[in-house]
Amino acid sequence: MDIKKIPVIMDVDTGIDDAVAIMLAMSSDKIDLKGITVVAGNQTLEKTLHNTLSVVEYFGRSDIPVAAGADRPLVKELYVDPATHGESGLGTAKLPQPTIKPHALDAVSFLRETLEKSEDKITLVPVAPLTNIALLLTCYPHVKEKIEKIVMMGGGAFEGNMNAVSEFNMFVDPEAAQIVFDSGVDIVMCGLDVTMKSYTTMEDILALKATDTKAGDFCAEAFGVYYDRYVSNSRLPGCAVHDAVTITYLLHPEWIKTEKANVKMDIDGAETYGQTVCDFRPDRDKTNDNALVCLDIDREKFVNLLIKACEYYK
Amino acid sequence: MDIKKIPVIMDVDTGIDDAVAIMLAMSSDKIDLKGITVVAGNQTLEKTLHNTLSVVEYFGRSDIPVAAGADRPLVKELYVDPATHGESGLGTAKLPQPTIKPHALDAVSFLRETLEKSEDKITLVPVAPLTNIALLLTCYPHVKEKIEKIVMMGGGAFEGNMNAVSEFNMFVDPEAAQIVFDSGVDIVMCGLDVTMKSYTTMEDILALKATDTKAGDFCAEAFGVYYDRYVSNSRLPGCAVHDAVTITYLLHPEWIKTEKANVKMDIDGAETYGQTVCDFRPDRDKTNDNALVCLDIDREKFVNLLIKACEYYK
Amino acid sequence: MDIKKIPVIMDVDTGIDDAVAIMLAMSSDKIDLKGITVVAGNQTLEKTLHNTLSVVEYFGRSDIPVAAGADRPLVKELYVDPATHGESGLGTAKLPQPTIKPHALDAVSFLRETLEKSEDKITLVPVAPLTNIALLLTCYPHVKEKIEKIVMMGGGAFEGNMNAVSEFNMFVDPEAAQIVFDSGVDIVMCGLDVTMKSYTTMEDILALKATDTKAGDFCAEAFGVYYDRYVSNSRLPGCAVHDAVTITYLLHPEWIKTEKANVKMDIDGAETYGQTVCDFRPDRDKTNDNALVCLDIDREKFVNLLIKACEYYK
Amino acid sequence: MDIKKIPVIMDVDTGIDDAVAIMLAMSSDKIDLKGITVVAGNQTLEKTLHNTLSVVEYFGRSDIPVAAGADRPLVKELYVDPATHGESGLGTAKLPQPTIKPHALDAVSFLRETLEKSEDKITLVPVAPLTNIALLLTCYPHVKEKIEKIVMMGGGAFEGNMNAVSEFNMFVDPEAAQIVFDSGVDIVMCGLDVTMKSYTTMEDILALKATDTKAGDFCAEAFGVYYDRYVSNSRLPGCAVHDAVTITYLLHPEWIKTEKANVKMDIDGAETYGQTVCDFRPDRDKTNDNALVCLDIDREKFVNLLIKACEYYK
Repeated sequence: MDIKKIPVIMDVDTGIDDAVAIMLAMSSDKIDLKGITVVAGNQTLEKTLHNTLSVVEYFGRSDIPVAAGADRPLVKELYVDPATHGESGLGTAKLPQPTIKPHALDAVSFLRETLEKSEDKITLVPVAPLTNIALLLTCYPHVKEKIEKIVMMGGGAFEGNMNAVSEFNMFVDPEAAQIVFDSGVDIVMCGLDVTMKSYTTMEDILALKATDTKAGDFCAEAFGVYYDRYVSNSRLPGCAVHDAVTITYLLHPEWIKTEKANVKMDIDGAETYGQTVCDFRPDRDKTNDNALVCLDIDREKFVNLLIKACEYYK
Repeated sequence: MDIKKIPVIMDVDTGIDDAVAIMLAMSSDKIDLKGITVVAGNQTLEKTLHNTLSVVEYFGRSDIPVAAGADRPLVKELYVDPATHGESGLGTAKLPQPTIKPHALDAVSFLRETLEKSEDKITLVPVAPLTNIALLLTCYPHVKEKIEKIVMMGGGAFEGNMNAVSEFNMFVDPEAAQIVFDSGVDIVMCGLDVTMKSYTTMEDILALKATDTKAGDFCAEAFGVYYDRYVSNSRLPGCAVHDAVTITYLLHPEWIKTEKANVKMDIDGAETYGQTVCDFRPDRDKTNDNALVCLDIDREKFVNLLIKACEYYK
Repeated sequence: MDIKKIPVIMDVDTGIDDAVAIMLAMSSDKIDLKGITVVAGNQTLEKTLHNTLSVVEYFGRSDIPVAAGADRPLVKELYVDPATHGESGLGTAKLPQPTIKPHALDAVSFLRETLEKSEDKITLVPVAPLTNIALLLTCYPHVKEKIEKIVMMGGGAFEGNMNAVSEFNMFVDPEAAQIVFDSGVDIVMCGLDVTMKSYTTMEDILALKATDTKAGDFCAEAFGVYYDRYVSNSRLPGCAVHDAVTITYLLHPEWIKTEKANVKMDIDGAETYGQTVCDFRPDRDKTNDNALVCLDIDREKFVNLLIKACEYYK
Repeated sequence: MDIKKIPVIMDVDTGIDDAVAIMLAMSSDKIDLKGITVVAGNQTLEKTLHNTLSVVEYFGRSDIPVAAGADRPLVKELYVDPATHGESGLGTAKLPQPTIKPHALDAVSFLRETLEKSEDKITLVPVAPLTNIALLLTCYPHVKEKIEKIVMMGGGAFEGNMNAVSEFNMFVDPEAAQIVFDSGVDIVMCGLDVTMKSYTTMEDILALKATDTKAGDFCAEAFGVYYDRYVSNSRLPGCAVHDAVTITYLLHPEWIKTEKANVKMDIDGAETYGQTVCDFRPDRDKTNDNALVCLDIDREKFVNLLIKACEYYK
């Protein structure tokens, strides 16, 4: 076959759903995963780095470089989320200790070098606070021309989870998010509007488990407390697999409903801190539109994609 | 008949849709309109007071007291909207000069006295910046026990018209809005979520005109430029009659879909200034819920109510 | 003698230094104290009202009307300061229970009526959060023409006591302060710059006590813990008698060094909340100057004035 | 002689007073100037880089590496100041076109590498918006242990020049300043409090000119419009040579009066944006003190130092 693969670098704070997103990306023959950079977010950098190395090795892809990045947001103090992702960051899942090591370069230098050396434009897929990406774009703005686009998990036009209107990744580093949204790079925003519709029910989780693979086992194990928390605290009949939506968008944009918008960050409002303020008004100045905001998804197809991804690890 | 009328004081910045709301309230035998207080907003106080007196007299209800209130917001400078409501504030409508005079008391004193003297609790219906109401609640908090509830036009959970997320009345006096939302009085918020669904198409306007009444004529005349502006600047196939939704809620709450929420004002965000931040999250602290947020309406019934209101003026 | 008295209304949140300021004002034959309005601040309204009535009666001036005002700031929650002024608000002083009652009118109505009826312009002397004054100016802007000026205690150009740059009265109700500074009324600001130079040492306190009067006894008694707190927490060798500086300014402006400035309130900065931002820059737009900022005082004369005021109560 | 030289890297946005500071640093046998990094500020990066290269070459020190850094602030838009520093950034001075080139590394990489390779700790001397320094500390926090301290020009405890309370370098990139103040690195802040006392009168400028050196000529030429602007817009009888105070502090800290403080940045206040909020209160939590704030200087000695520096270029 001869379809060109999509060159991708993921930026993660692994994280249960980060792990699923990485697993999904590595399972696809349409994605050329050139590396993974890591940042603090769901847990401290030490833990998210450890988890990322574990995940990469567990799924048999020790060849993929993993580079450590920022251990805290640009301006604000670090805020982590053990209540959702557990003390380890991977919930109730237990992966073997990783034997592989992080890349010699730090995340920003790795991103810079990989982009500079690449002949093709690369798609960045951050599913974490945008600290690393913001530092890259600020320190080395010339690499923008090598970025195809940024397909990110974060924000929300009509939903929040940290306060009424703000999502975790944006809340943790709103200044970094502002830098990214103002950077001029094309952005696809997979925010809570779409990711809260990208959930797996208990039935779905059993189907993942039933693949009888490393990946299915991992999902079933990791989704334990995470699932319970969503079912009791949200309106969902399952747990949202936020970060996996980005990779799904890369593979099947036709499953996801989007709308163009001008997105600005709120970085100082007492009640709105971290909000991705999405302007869809028909009379807005559309020349300032900077993002494609994902609003809905064909959930059944999304779940089936996850099941097939698990089967890949047979 | 012996249904008890609902005692109401409206607070207005008349305004095209304010005029329609007043006309609607006065047409109903279920509403006992005890007075109207006026504030600056759509236009300067001088103009909104003049318009209110004109409307009351034109529709034959010179008996209703009209009291002049604040000529500017609490803290911020006044911002008016001639682009929507015209230089006069009543669009292309031309009403006769009013011969009646404002009440001797200012708005806050009128509200205080009327509430203090009333045996029944009174429903306040502000369809304007909340300056007068905030001053009342701050100067004379003891009158809260005489307020049945506040059914207001303003804000929006998922829509804005002044910036991406903020509505005109809230934008003009966000501090006043914060005082009202924090006051402990029960609030029904008819924001853009419901009022942008409460529009009249050209066909509807022709039906209003066809009633061949003072009221139908007024609507047809006033909706000229106002209608054109909505059709070209919004996604609507007609013009939103925002303020009339409050009176509709009083008469037929069963036509309107609502949801409880904790609403807080943003008064300082650069991109979110004036936003009514509505927290619907299932895991929020529901003991802080302070408003019933209107989200949808049976538009056909709404339009029919307007037509019947016009017929009342035969 | 035939010098015209200065007509004054004080606005207080009594408070140790409020009590001294009231005592000082009542001791002077140059001041015609037309009334005192009360607000929440150093303590709750209930306590500051009680204290004000006590003070007025204790010093033999039950003829002066005392009107109760706002029990909380305009927009923010009330913040009181028992650590400085004690649980009662009057430190370690114990005054007899007052037998007099508050005026029938609330503070805003009393201010309005007194100003409207006065032939002469009246000087307002707020030594408390500016809630009452802001409500007056907002509800009844026409009374501005009857206000000679506002001589207030609050703020600071170069000092803070609540955070690095903000003073208690401004911190408690910054929106009210903004309304007052933007009102167009002439303002004399006796902020921490001058009031922290207006302290009484232990020697001074003994001199007050040595007058062997009701007033001297009260000062000596009230200054107990208050004095200790200043000596241990500030750079001062005594306790600042902030509020008394306003009355001193009325009587002897020549003792106080002032400078014109454009003063704006910060109402939203995380680190600067409540700051009176004073612009003295020579190239500022001086047409916006709205205040005379007091910067220094002849402390010895100030202390002697207090001693003489005590002697008046022989 | 055998006194150890102070290893220094300057960070500049050259600028008239930046040029004088560089000249001063290069004239001293106590300073080992290991490099200069450049940032946008007084003018665009293109111009400040050009000016820095010109200055270095003009003063005969083409051996000093000059590395180009950020062309805009972290989060905000770039704001430049041609009114003070002229269109070129060097006022009325005309230096020959530079023939030397910038260093191969960008500023952040140069700083990182130089610090990593240095055996001794290095003092950073930023006299510009803190963008480069903030990026360094954020991307490569491990280099903090190689930083002796940061002696910076910027901010002000009691003075502002961009608004009432904020200084140019801080105003241009307040988020970067916050990162630096929160970094844990020791900071000496040469703000407007001391730099507005570090001025040269016309007599002083003539004395610089009278050295009859490249440096004296440059100062006399560059200070033309710059001097006029200060004399007409400020209270000073001369022009402030802000950036040179940092180098003076390195050479003669005993000439400068300092006080420890806890300094925080205001990054969102409407009136206080960019303020270095300095907490000197005796009852503050002193464990949070992060800066030595310079408050006064022996101006005569400062001017003599400049004259001697000029003489060095004989």
